Amino acid sequence: MKISFVYQSLILINLIIIFDIIDTLEILNLFNINRHHQGLYKSLSSSTPLLKGKVRNLHEKYYSQYVDHFSFTNRNTFKQRYLISTEHWKSPNGPIWFWAGNEGDVYDSAKKVGFIWDNAEKFQAMILFMEHRYYGKSIPYGKNSFKKLSNYGYLTVEQALDDYASFIVHIRSTMKGARSSPVVIIGGSYGGMLAAWFRIKYPHLCVGALASSAPFLHYPNIYDCKNYYRIATETFSNYSTNCSESIRRSWPAIRRLAKTNNGRTLLTKKFNLCEKFNPSQLESLIHYISYIWAVLPMMDNPKSSYPIKNACQYLNEPDSNDEQLITAIGKAYSVFKKNKQCKQLSGYGDMYIQKDSWDFQTCTELALPLCSDGVNDMFELSEWKMEQFSNDCHKKYGINPDPHKPLRIFGGKNIQHTATNIIFSNGLKDPWSGGSVLESLSDSLIAIKIPGACHCEDLLTETTNDTKTVLDAREQELQIIRGWFETYYEKKKIDFKF
Amino acid sequence: MKISFVYQSLILINLIIIFDIIDTLEILNLFNINRHHQGLYKSLSSSTPLLKGKVRNLHEKYYSQYVDHFSFTNRNTFKQRYLISTEHWKSPNGPIWFWAGNEGDVYDSAKKVGFIWDNAEKFQAMILFMEHRYYGKSIPYGKNSFKKLSNYGYLTVEQALDDYASFIVHIRSTMKGARSSPVVIIGGSYGGMLAAWFRIKYPHLCVGALASSAPFLHYPNIYDCKNYYRIATETFSNYSTNCSESIRRSWPAIRRLAKTNNGRTLLTKKFNLCEKFNPSQLESLIHYISYIWAVLPMMDNPKSSYPIKNACQYLNEPDSNDEQLITAIGKAYSVFKKNKQCKQLSGYGDMYIQKDSWDFQTCTELALPLCSDGVNDMFELSEWKMEQFSNDCHKKYGINPDPHKPLRIFGGKNIQHTATNIIFSNGLKDPWSGGSVLESLSDSLIAIKIPGACHCEDLLTETTNDTKTVLDAREQELQIIRGWFETYYEKKKIDFKF
Repeated sequence: MKISFVYQSLILINLIIIFDIIDTLEILNLFNINRHHQGLYKSLSSSTPLLKGKVRNLHEKYYSQYVDHFSFTNRNTFKQRYLISTEHWKSPNGPIWFWAGNEGDVYDSAKKVGFIWDNAEKFQAMILFMEHRYYGKSIPYGKNSFKKLSNYGYLTVEQALDDYASFIVHIRSTMKGARSSPVVIIGGSYGGMLAAWFRIKYPHLCVGALASSAPFLHYPNIYDCKNYYRIATETFSNYSTNCSESIRRSWPAIRRLAKTNNGRTLLTKKFNLCEKFNPSQLESLIHYISYIWAVLPMMDNPKSSYPIKNACQYLNEPDSNDEQLITAIGKAYSVFKKNKQCKQLSGYGDMYIQKDSWDFQTCTELALPLCSDGVNDMFELSEWKMEQFSNDCHKKYGINPDPHKPLRIFGGKNIQHTATNIIFSNGLKDPWSGGSVLESLSDSLIAIKIPGACHCEDLLTETTNDTKTVLDAREQELQIIRGWFETYYEKKKIDFKF
Repeated sequence: MKISFVYQSLILINLIIIFDIIDTLEILNLFNINRHHQGLYKSLSSSTPLLKGKVRNLHEKYYSQYVDHFSFTNRNTFKQRYLISTEHWKSPNGPIWFWAGNEGDVYDSAKKVGFIWDNAEKFQAMILFMEHRYYGKSIPYGKNSFKKLSNYGYLTVEQALDDYASFIVHIRSTMKGARSSPVVIIGGSYGGMLAAWFRIKYPHLCVGALASSAPFLHYPNIYDCKNYYRIATETFSNYSTNCSESIRRSWPAIRRLAKTNNGRTLLTKKFNLCEKFNPSQLESLIHYISYIWAVLPMMDNPKSSYPIKNACQYLNEPDSNDEQLITAIGKAYSVFKKNKQCKQLSGYGDMYIQKDSWDFQTCTELALPLCSDGVNDMFELSEWKMEQFSNDCHKKYGINPDPHKPLRIFGGKNIQHTATNIIFSNGLKDPWSGGSVLESLSDSLIAIKIPGACHCEDLLTETTNDTKTVLDAREQELQIIRGWFETYYEKKKIDFKF
């Protein structure tokens, strides 16, 4: 069962990778992204090339936040980072675009979320990016954060949401002209879930939420865990069924090749491994290659030059022999590996015991189960079983997951008669879309499906390469958000024009 | 400043007294009610005389609840008591009437909330009374609960609400026929605040809330702290202005009498004190008498034979001399003191350092400020200052109050465009009504004002003595609740008829 567990960890740890790969297209750098990216950015003036010139007057600040909002047993505080730009803000009463930080460095997001930068001026909006607790530079107990449960146990969705609530109240009550500023909350992926949940739980503090590519309904027993790999496979099949079929057949080929010395030499060469492939590394190699195919559909967009399209050009002969097939797979794989550094497989298999913030979240409130059957998808059979998952988590953290807790607290789909003003946008090529809201739940809980788009593509900056579906989706989102603001100003009798 | 603090503690500790005094009309027994009433009830078959025969098949059970719902630092559980009656419940899909336990023993409430018992049969409803954590028999750390902050710090509104949510999910997922049962949540006083907040935060788990006499907007800086004593005074003045004026003039009279030996003898006799009145007990005596006048308006209803009306018959000569005035006050006071036990004043003044569950709640999330000016009310001047209040709380518990936290979390009045299906009912004689919602906030956030009624009077069982205003209010509440259920069944396409 470790297999499926590793699969899952690998993919989950990279819910945010879309924001990185578009810059780098360097798969290898994606691993452990959460652990190594801190301190990379020396200056807040840098940003993704596409956003250059738009990210202006962005200031890094810190807000003192309680570690525990819901009991009085721990009155510790920590410094939570936020980024603020008032470059285009019209005071008083101009709106606030609030980014719900997700599982990573918030500056990393700020550099990439072009949708906010592209539109702040026309909305005369203040821009706030708030970092999620236990990520980036917002680590409550510093280096000791993961040394004991009494330090990392405060990493929960509910605490994170109340961080945002406390901060919004703080900004509105201390910043001149902001007291009546309407807030729209925006997030992508897990951050999109947070944005939607924030609107559900704190509707008095925001006029609405844009939840982009948020697997909002991705719960054990409710969500079909096969969805992710099935959709990922479809994204390959849509270029050519030979492509996905080649990948499906590559797994037994790799297993056969691993049994012979010649085969192992071939694997070492084609996957550019640093050390001669050893049969004990078989599962690691398969996980690694699976991972690449599993995450690529999240980022198959024009800004990344459609990486799957590129890969599939090499994968058109699924009927070829093992050597030919793996040679083709190796070529497809090398497309994304711009630097020529060899791949270190040893130690890779240990990742499943890695403790970090996101892993802890998946082991507690956000199980996000994934599985594959090898029939409806191109991956090897990999089951997901709650019991095994619980046991693995218990081994690591000493507690069992409580994956239905967000359902109890936020209501899942049963928000349709009570919650309002949430946009659930999804690129349909994105495998996470299978756990999201794809049909509107009501007049104001609006699903925007974006054919041909990938993970959070609507949040990226507008370019001439964007597809019409993405452009239309952004336009629809802006119209809805504008409507929320206008309704707010009207009800509050505030004269504010965009 | 201790004066106002004591005032406040005394009154707050008895938000629930309405449910007791109607049985006993014994003021002395009201003090420390939360501390002494446990274990009084030997059998669950007993109930208030008015409810005899209606409370049937009520079973006491316990549910295992996490002490901390919002972090993973503490996985302790405790046994939370609930009372259940399925006597009239129609399975499957019959509705659930859920009582949001407040600051006291839940069985005590169950015996008194006639509104639920009177109507369960016609609604074919299951009845659930859930005890609030840290009250009654639902004490997470038993006798050690108040020994350290790490034990009592989990006594927060948010945790209490999630207790109810967890339990409702549990009942609906484990009890045959209850999976689709709609829940209406009902509470009185602080429990009414909880009911309203529950609907705001967990609308997917209940169809609506009846918040009876809930001081929902009673926050420092938002609520005028003079309201309580002003309304209390009006309730006396409405019988006769001589009555309230007599009380207003009694304070300087008591202070003058305390200065002479004859005066002290008179005070001892008229207030039936156990020991000869000592000048050092002056503040205690005044607090004690003030307290009686302050709480009586909560319970001035026909079931209690209108105690203020009875008191006021003795208080018609405010211009009389000190001796005559205090003699009259003593007579008015003795009306409610059915047993002839003398009053022990010594030790009484220490109450302000008493730590208990409700005191802790007022020192953290529920400050509920009260003050008097002696001009618009008949009490002595008593200010309420946040700073002093904070200091006093810090001395006791080592933490400062966070009285605006419920505003941040629940939104205060700013729920009008997003929350739905809450009834705020208030008897207008009830001094707490001044901090409640007295005008409807929207079509489905409905204020029901009940002229001439007192604290939670609509929740008591129907009798032939009830006023038309109370009968009408109950009828309106039932119609609205029926509407919530019907809408629910319609949306869910469940064929269920009352």
